Amino acid sequence: MTTIKDSVHDHIELEGVAKALVDTPAVQRLRHIKQLGTVQLVYPSANHTRFEHSLGVYHLANRALEELGIEGRQAERVRAAALLHDVGHGPFSHNIEELTARHTGKYHDDVEELLAAGAVGDILREYDLSPTHIAGLVAGEGQFGQLVSGELDVDRMDYLVRDAHHTGVPYGTIDTERLVRELTFLEGELVLDTGNVQTAESLLLARALMNPTVYMHPVARISKAMLRRASERLLEKTAIDAHELRRMDDHDLLVALRETPATEAFAERYGSRRLLKKAVWAELKDVPESLLAADHEEIRDLESAVADRAELPVSDVIIEIPDEPTMRESTSRVIVGGDIRKLDDQSPLVSALRTAQQGQWRLGVYTRQEATDRVGRLAVEALGLELSEGLIRETRGLHATLDEFE
Amino acid sequence: MTTIKDSVHDHIELEGVAKALVDTPAVQRLRHIKQLGTVQLVYPSANHTRFEHSLGVYHLANRALEELGIEGRQAERVRAAALLHDVGHGPFSHNIEELTARHTGKYHDDVEELLAAGAVGDILREYDLSPTHIAGLVAGEGQFGQLVSGELDVDRMDYLVRDAHHTGVPYGTIDTERLVRELTFLEGELVLDTGNVQTAESLLLARALMNPTVYMHPVARISKAMLRRASERLLEKTAIDAHELRRMDDHDLLVALRETPATEAFAERYGSRRLLKKAVWAELKDVPESLLAADHEEIRDLESAVADRAELPVSDVIIEIPDEPTMRESTSRVIVGGDIRKLDDQSPLVSALRTAQQGQWRLGVYTRQEATDRVGRLAVEALGLELSEGLIRETRGLHATLDEFE
Amino acid sequence: MTTIKDSVHDHIELEGVAKALVDTPAVQRLRHIKQLGTVQLVYPSANHTRFEHSLGVYHLANRALEELGIEGRQAERVRAAALLHDVGHGPFSHNIEELTARHTGKYHDDVEELLAAGAVGDILREYDLSPTHIAGLVAGEGQFGQLVSGELDVDRMDYLVRDAHHTGVPYGTIDTERLVRELTFLEGELVLDTGNVQTAESLLLARALMNPTVYMHPVARISKAMLRRASERLLEKTAIDAHELRRMDDHDLLVALRETPATEAFAERYGSRRLLKKAVWAELKDVPESLLAADHEEIRDLESAVADRAELPVSDVIIEIPDEPTMRESTSRVIVGGDIRKLDDQSPLVSALRTAQQGQWRLGVYTRQEATDRVGRLAVEALGLELSEGLIRETRGLHATLDEFE
Amino acid sequence: MTTIKDSVHDHIELEGVAKALVDTPAVQRLRHIKQLGTVQLVYPSANHTRFEHSLGVYHLANRALEELGIEGRQAERVRAAALLHDVGHGPFSHNIEELTARHTGKYHDDVEELLAAGAVGDILREYDLSPTHIAGLVAGEGQFGQLVSGELDVDRMDYLVRDAHHTGVPYGTIDTERLVRELTFLEGELVLDTGNVQTAESLLLARALMNPTVYMHPVARISKAMLRRASERLLEKTAIDAHELRRMDDHDLLVALRETPATEAFAERYGSRRLLKKAVWAELKDVPESLLAADHEEIRDLESAVADRAELPVSDVIIEIPDEPTMRESTSRVIVGGDIRKLDDQSPLVSALRTAQQGQWRLGVYTRQEATDRVGRLAVEALGLELSEGLIRETRGLHATLDEFE
Repeated sequence: MTTIKDSVHDHIELEGVAKALVDTPAVQRLRHIKQLGTVQLVYPSANHTRFEHSLGVYHLANRALEELGIEGRQAERVRAAALLHDVGHGPFSHNIEELTARHTGKYHDDVEELLAAGAVGDILREYDLSPTHIAGLVAGEGQFGQLVSGELDVDRMDYLVRDAHHTGVPYGTIDTERLVRELTFLEGELVLDTGNVQTAESLLLARALMNPTVYMHPVARISKAMLRRASERLLEKTAIDAHELRRMDDHDLLVALRETPATEAFAERYGSRRLLKKAVWAELKDVPESLLAADHEEIRDLESAVADRAELPVSDVIIEIPDEPTMRESTSRVIVGGDIRKLDDQSPLVSALRTAQQGQWRLGVYTRQEATDRVGRLAVEALGLELSEGLIRETRGLHATLDEFE
Repeated sequence: MTTIKDSVHDHIELEGVAKALVDTPAVQRLRHIKQLGTVQLVYPSANHTRFEHSLGVYHLANRALEELGIEGRQAERVRAAALLHDVGHGPFSHNIEELTARHTGKYHDDVEELLAAGAVGDILREYDLSPTHIAGLVAGEGQFGQLVSGELDVDRMDYLVRDAHHTGVPYGTIDTERLVRELTFLEGELVLDTGNVQTAESLLLARALMNPTVYMHPVARISKAMLRRASERLLEKTAIDAHELRRMDDHDLLVALRETPATEAFAERYGSRRLLKKAVWAELKDVPESLLAADHEEIRDLESAVADRAELPVSDVIIEIPDEPTMRESTSRVIVGGDIRKLDDQSPLVSALRTAQQGQWRLGVYTRQEATDRVGRLAVEALGLELSEGLIRETRGLHATLDEFE
Repeated sequence: MTTIKDSVHDHIELEGVAKALVDTPAVQRLRHIKQLGTVQLVYPSANHTRFEHSLGVYHLANRALEELGIEGRQAERVRAAALLHDVGHGPFSHNIEELTARHTGKYHDDVEELLAAGAVGDILREYDLSPTHIAGLVAGEGQFGQLVSGELDVDRMDYLVRDAHHTGVPYGTIDTERLVRELTFLEGELVLDTGNVQTAESLLLARALMNPTVYMHPVARISKAMLRRASERLLEKTAIDAHELRRMDDHDLLVALRETPATEAFAERYGSRRLLKKAVWAELKDVPESLLAADHEEIRDLESAVADRAELPVSDVIIEIPDEPTMRESTSRVIVGGDIRKLDDQSPLVSALRTAQQGQWRLGVYTRQEATDRVGRLAVEALGLELSEGLIRETRGLHATLDEFE
Repeated sequence: MTTIKDSVHDHIELEGVAKALVDTPAVQRLRHIKQLGTVQLVYPSANHTRFEHSLGVYHLANRALEELGIEGRQAERVRAAALLHDVGHGPFSHNIEELTARHTGKYHDDVEELLAAGAVGDILREYDLSPTHIAGLVAGEGQFGQLVSGELDVDRMDYLVRDAHHTGVPYGTIDTERLVRELTFLEGELVLDTGNVQTAESLLLARALMNPTVYMHPVARISKAMLRRASERLLEKTAIDAHELRRMDDHDLLVALRETPATEAFAERYGSRRLLKKAVWAELKDVPESLLAADHEEIRDLESAVADRAELPVSDVIIEIPDEPTMRESTSRVIVGGDIRKLDDQSPLVSALRTAQQGQWRLGVYTRQEATDRVGRLAVEALGLELSEGLIRETRGLHATLDEFE
């Protein structure tokens, strides 16, 4: 048995297949991928990685299996899936996932190939575990896949407390022990046992507060958008292809961006934290339907058009249109009166949070500090936004924390 | 200057009038009044007192004054009010407040008399502060009274984090520094500055989760109801009157209950934690309007009637009808777009939380373990409740934590 | 199974005999005995009780048993002993233990009688456990007694972290999980496994820093001495005898002291925190051997003599001569190179800490603020102390924390 | 003013020159240098950087200045020095400092050139601060230099608590607020005020426990030695010189090591955590004087000799001879009885800790797992060590934590 000291869960014990997997290159690589990507530019101590998060997810999965009384091969499979669930991440975690997925068709939880190959594949087969089956669990398939990826998965439980610990933002501080103790299977569904409506709500609320404060903080969004744009340029201007990009770690990508002439300017801005600024920050209701449906090419064209009119290089104008908010936890299931109920039906908070998230959604247009006014006006026109001068001005009011650090 | 080490806010500095007040009997008495009364029977480490809470409130008030740039006599008044805000509490804090208030007309924040008398009065006058004015601040009067008692007061900020620290329930872990830094006065109103809708929501959500899990935990409610009933008997059967009762501390009351023959049985049950159990646990929608409007005497009569029919001593049947839930924080004000807005209007969460609280409300009827079925049936009938057998059975499902410790 | 939420160890699970014992009057009584007695007058948030400490000791014992692979009846015995180990404490824990022991011959760990009687005795016998055997474990007898009371017992592990949590003094923050994981039995002795010299040292060092800062803080010592003196008077002036006193809880004692005319003055001073002050604070090297050997009567005579000469009531002069410091952890055993070694032999820190403790030792003479000079001079003479004016003056320099709060 | 949220000190406020400096490339570069270098291979969550540490040091310096009543230009200088004190660090902090210093003559605190150049120099001059003067403060010169680099500097205070927070090892949890509040200047010397012998000891003890458990953990030492060796090879085999190496960040170095054929093998071992293992682990008393005095070339020759005899490539044998332990805190000064005393003279712990550190010192010889026996025997002979078979075997016993994670 191997024991690892973790700043969140204290001692984590690795046995069996997990112990064998931990030192493989695929898992060790996660040491070099920050959990929160560019959020570190807002919260300087948020440097934790996918590696310790994966250990934490493994640990909570193990605790849940203990409480559920699941042992043997089935447990071994879930433990492997928990430890391996993030090996598909590219550099900076989710930050450039959309870009690589556009070219490769693969998101971070599409790991079958990765699990079948190399040392990981060898070990899984040695333990008589099917890479395909484990990849299915990572993708949330089957009864036990719910533990790894689902409304009540241990992934979320770990990242909320871990992100709170490392950012210093207390909102993510949930009661993980309570959660793993109350998980149960009923009719093949992973649910929280009787008496846990609030427990389920607490998970939802923690994410509702961490979202605007941490994950979607405007500065994190802007720097992420800049990174994505620069990475796209890397694909265009160098021999690096999207498959290669996806398997880089943070070091590889940062150095590549520094060393490529076409992305040097980005690297320099990033390195001295001279980020672009908000030119437009528009609410969902002010954005035309057609724009929400625009594909990548159309948005690139709009960026070019605005940059042209503003007489700026195209790299100085970024239009970011986030997906419409979803709330996976809303379908968390709890037992009430002996029946399984969806949290959605049980808690009036769910729909309120959904409305709140809609209200927090913003389309962003970013540019150089000195050009924000000009680009703002041009972009409102080009994008067909219906927004009052007032709303642009109010930007600061819409987000929760540390705006001064912008 | 005096420095005190606090487990929540670390070093707390006392100066001026606060330093003079801290060692008065009225303030020192708070060392002997538990912050959460009978909640200690659910969360064994919840033994913190009104004394350290008062220091914490003083500390946060002081921080807020610093951030608001308020100095001199005005600040001195707020500091005095913060430190003194809880001197009006009786034994077990809120637990028997309703009882003493019925007889004395005084709630815990009615402190003018207490502030004018004894060492506290002497010190206030020595510092040229008016006891009447300070009492007004404690009651939330005037612009600065909002800091001590209002929707965004520092009282709430302290108790949420302190109760979380001492119970071990993480839900109350709010960001107090963020809150005090963002307070500002606009047109005489205490509001949160631009960019703090989520900050205001976080306060609301923390209380929404602490409420059912801690403050209104069924076991805390039952033991509180038992304590109130026994204290009422103390007033009936001994020379102790309500004014005297109100000025007791926890030690005085517990010993009086142990030494009075009429309350000995309660003391014995309490001491060995043999609490009454739920016989009925009814939702708001199932309770007739007339019952919600019933006064104390009417409820006592109903208890007698049920006890009679169940052939139990009247002390073995308790009917508890909580007030309908309110949510003071809902009118917290935040600045959005340069205007003051009520959180109510700004956040969809407020009305959802209000609905959630309505849903959590329960009427309780408590009796001895062995009589719960019988008393349950009789009480449903006597109270005119419209509730299905099912709902009685489901009791466990409605509360969030540690039901096993019932 | 019963689950209890603890602010230190999070979820604590009670099963079997422990679950049966927890609601007995003997264990529930511990809810009313503060863990640190008068230390609360220095650290206001130190209101934790022997009850939650007992749960914590039970929890760590249980963890240790799991790691050691001990199961069945043997484990059940240790768990019972851990939960019951403090039932022999009198009011204010160790504060008046010396007084009651002088009259009853019983210290807090002499619990055989208590374990054989009442509900505890019934339950132990029902679980086929011998009260005598359990009492032996509490007293540290036999191989498994070492877990409950010994150099590496779980008692110490719990109180260090718990006292740190509730006082806010970080020095006690040890790594309890590391400690319980590394315990092992070798030749019947409880030792720390190979690789744990520093783990053993950390325990020693935590106590070395908590001692002067918390447990032996001058204000805690003075108030304890006052409490002991007042309790002694209670025995002299009322019908209460030492056996009865020993079975009181904090409430009983405080109320008795308030209600007894002979101790009213103490109660009033205590209630308004007008404590006696240091008149003499003398180092070990300045105290004559004969004085260290003086018995209780001789010290009482010295107090009377000094009070007489100072023209003060005898209750206003207290001479406190602590025992010479011991350091039980010094004989902790660790495995080094396959052999058991005493920490004493292995770590140069042990003898240094012993010297440090000797250096921290102080004889105290306490009196009313206004009489400290006069009483100081008279006491130095009466006690035959060899101490320079300088040393008296330097008092503040000798202790670690929060002198301002004296 | 800029406010930054820190996971250790909560809100950190930047004003004046510090606010201007924080976004310079020299300071932002520290975001990419891990505080503890390869310690991350033992404690996976130890990914914090010199950037947040520098903010923390700035924050504590600011707190100390407030408490000391130092304002104006003098304070501005100290704040600048605190924020800039680590800009001279190379990649992986101290890990390869010895190597770059051998070639460049510059250690991390030799920053005059760096402070005079670029944006930092411009800003300092704009604020009328002399880069030379600030560099002097960073090097600990003058009265105020003691705050930045000295026995009681705020650097140490920050790193102990920060390293504890991020590793999860509690030993570094000191009371930083207590420390900054008790600092005072007496006769130009920075000392702890009366009453703080234990406060000074606590700092010493925290480091004494963190040292073997974290900073000198065998796995951290081995991986550091491997990194240093590989970096040396980089200098030999590529166009990169030591000045350039010193100004790299962690990304640059890791990628360079991966891309250079001569260091590829190292990069691959590092990436899959297949580290070398201990072949010899010898105590100070067993190492000949001459070996302790050996210079870099001599040690390289010994490595070659052993590798040759063992028929291994020279990259597979590393001999690491740490400097003899020093203990800077031993000369911390505290006020006792109105005089300044060195902690050394006041506390018996200091010399004991010195002895303990001597006892913990180890010479290490590292090689591939499968060759440890063979290389061990050859190295003992080549180095002239006097060590028993026993001592080699006991290795595990000498270190405090997580040996399993080796």
